[in-house]
Amino acid sequence: MPISTLIDETLARIAPLNGEAMAAARARQDTLTKPLGSLGRLEDISILLAGMFGEVTPSIGRKATILAAGDHGVVEEGVSAYPQAVTPQMVFNFLNGGAAINVLARHVGAEIVILDAGVAEDLPPNPALRSVKVGYGTANMARGPAMTREQAIQCLETGIEAAGEQIAEGADLIAFGDMGIGNTTPSSAITSVFTGADPSVTTGRGTGLDDPGLERKAQVVRTAIDVNRPDPADGMDVLTKVGGFEIGVLAGAMLATAAGRRPAVVDGFISGAAALIAWSLSPAAAQYMIASHQSVEPGHRLALGHMGLSPLLDMGMRLGEGTGAVLAMPIIEAAARCLSEMATFADAGVSERIEDEDGGGT
Amino acid sequence: MPISTLIDETLARIAPLNGEAMAAARARQDTLTKPLGSLGRLEDISILLAGMFGEVTPSIGRKATILAAGDHGVVEEGVSAYPQAVTPQMVFNFLNGGAAINVLARHVGAEIVILDAGVAEDLPPNPALRSVKVGYGTANMARGPAMTREQAIQCLETGIEAAGEQIAEGADLIAFGDMGIGNTTPSSAITSVFTGADPSVTTGRGTGLDDPGLERKAQVVRTAIDVNRPDPADGMDVLTKVGGFEIGVLAGAMLATAAGRRPAVVDGFISGAAALIAWSLSPAAAQYMIASHQSVEPGHRLALGHMGLSPLLDMGMRLGEGTGAVLAMPIIEAAARCLSEMATFADAGVSERIEDEDGGGT
Repeated sequence: MPISTLIDETLARIAPLNGEAMAAARARQDTLTKPLGSLGRLEDISILLAGMFGEVTPSIGRKATILAAGDHGVVEEGVSAYPQAVTPQMVFNFLNGGAAINVLARHVGAEIVILDAGVAEDLPPNPALRSVKVGYGTANMARGPAMTREQAIQCLETGIEAAGEQIAEGADLIAFGDMGIGNTTPSSAITSVFTGADPSVTTGRGTGLDDPGLERKAQVVRTAIDVNRPDPADGMDVLTKVGGFEIGVLAGAMLATAAGRRPAVVDGFISGAAALIAWSLSPAAAQYMIASHQSVEPGHRLALGHMGLSPLLDMGMRLGEGTGAVLAMPIIEAAARCLSEMATFADAGVSERIEDEDGGGT
Repeated sequence: MPISTLIDETLARIAPLNGEAMAAARARQDTLTKPLGSLGRLEDISILLAGMFGEVTPSIGRKATILAAGDHGVVEEGVSAYPQAVTPQMVFNFLNGGAAINVLARHVGAEIVILDAGVAEDLPPNPALRSVKVGYGTANMARGPAMTREQAIQCLETGIEAAGEQIAEGADLIAFGDMGIGNTTPSSAITSVFTGADPSVTTGRGTGLDDPGLERKAQVVRTAIDVNRPDPADGMDVLTKVGGFEIGVLAGAMLATAAGRRPAVVDGFISGAAALIAWSLSPAAAQYMIASHQSVEPGHRLALGHMGLSPLLDMGMRLGEGTGAVLAMPIIEAAARCLSEMATFADAGVSERIEDEDGGGT
């Protein structure tokens, strides 16, 4: 079923990884001056990058983070340890360079694109803030759909445009971050819908709920699914009924990144929920995703596993904002550089393995 | 029992972490604009760094890798998949910038100090190579002690001098790398001696042994321990009997790093064995160690666990050279920068948690 021209065209542009480039990268890895396979996942990532870029030795230039903020009507149900006012306050913090994502992005040399996807307040104009507001927070999904289908389309299109622009400007590695008080709740709902796992399994403490708060939150997720009955075979329906504006924008941005043959670095639980939406619209998009880290949120592991992704880092983090994704960027770059820059056995005059004919394996 | 003036003085300079700086860093973390504890291990590392540097907000400037190469008489027993000639060949590769450690050190901005601690051949003079040769490879530890006590002292002193120089020149983060065909074999012996684990548990495939090769290697490790009976309570005895020149140099360098109150970034299995030697001479030195990654070598987990260290990365790597340690450097720097550079709730005007008096935890 067609969604919209821009979305349909983007989905049509997502191609499988380039097998020829991957085979050549694999062959090159085996000529480099190290024991076979001894760089472990760095080798695997380098080969994936070759498949994404369609080049034997891809090189990563500009890095970007797309950071989308939005509010959630479901906070009415008391699902967060922080007040909703923190969403715009943290957007100001991003604009002033004081948040964790600012520090980490400076550290790794990534630019940040800050999008107001649906903060519940009007934010004063700022040259560093892009207002792409789809609404003033979603509706309370425990009572009905979080958004209209038109809003869901608008989210995806906005994300597609934002990532498309980054790729056009030369971004070779794009991380995805979120801000939105209450947004682990829709993320749990999305994860439950796609994986079939009970909300008790996909719901975590978010920013720091206690036990009764956690139980209430799982019940809210269950209610939202019962009330809305989202169709797990239809990503648009899931986004509309139990999604979030920033989640939809990130899903669209991930689709455009895959369409642009560049790696999409998935952050934590909210970013993982956005990835599930993108994956449901185009399973091939998941081939362009690199899971940066394992969040403490229990649903994250399920979400990543459902798409066949395995996280690079396990740092006990649960902050969002794209912090885990940006932290993993130097590792992804390291993988590409080893493939491109290491000397081969032949170049360096280094002896290869002893081929021992008696099978002794010395 | 006194060892040597330089070694004894170095051991005496190793002080416990600064608890006051750590408490202040912990308190500062809890004022930063993020949910409490949400940066996970980045917060833990930042607090350790505060304790090492003795500063609330330590800043990491220059980074260095000390890369020591040495040969091992035990290769006579057929314990490696590569010929001994690869040790000097790889040293040339380091000098030419073509090895994985060169690529990764360039990537993270770390300098490399290359030490010939005991390669079995004379290497032509090169301004980038420091000849601190303790011998032309160790003796075959399956027949007797790997080195003399004088050589073991020389190794430690050489390492102390190399790291001391780096710290004097402003290095704030030092990684430790190794090169030496056959060096997983003494590392397995060292790990077995200190942890009490059987050689079958601490011996792995190294650069790529097959099953019969692995079995033979474990038997060689067992023989070396049986023949030499190293005293697990005496690190000097263990280094002398079943160590390696590069392992001793790295152990000395780690001691000097701890004495200089700077973090020692431990790499994989060989670096872990060197860390065990350093730890046995000064348990407080382990407080200055950061385990960078989990090597595929099975003994590595035991070695780290024995010192209470938990690795940051698990990338399926088994290359050595300091590659895992250098790969972890940006993460350690990120931890320090978040602690120093993030805005506080008060600075940023961000609301703190809802204190909910009915215990509902919203």
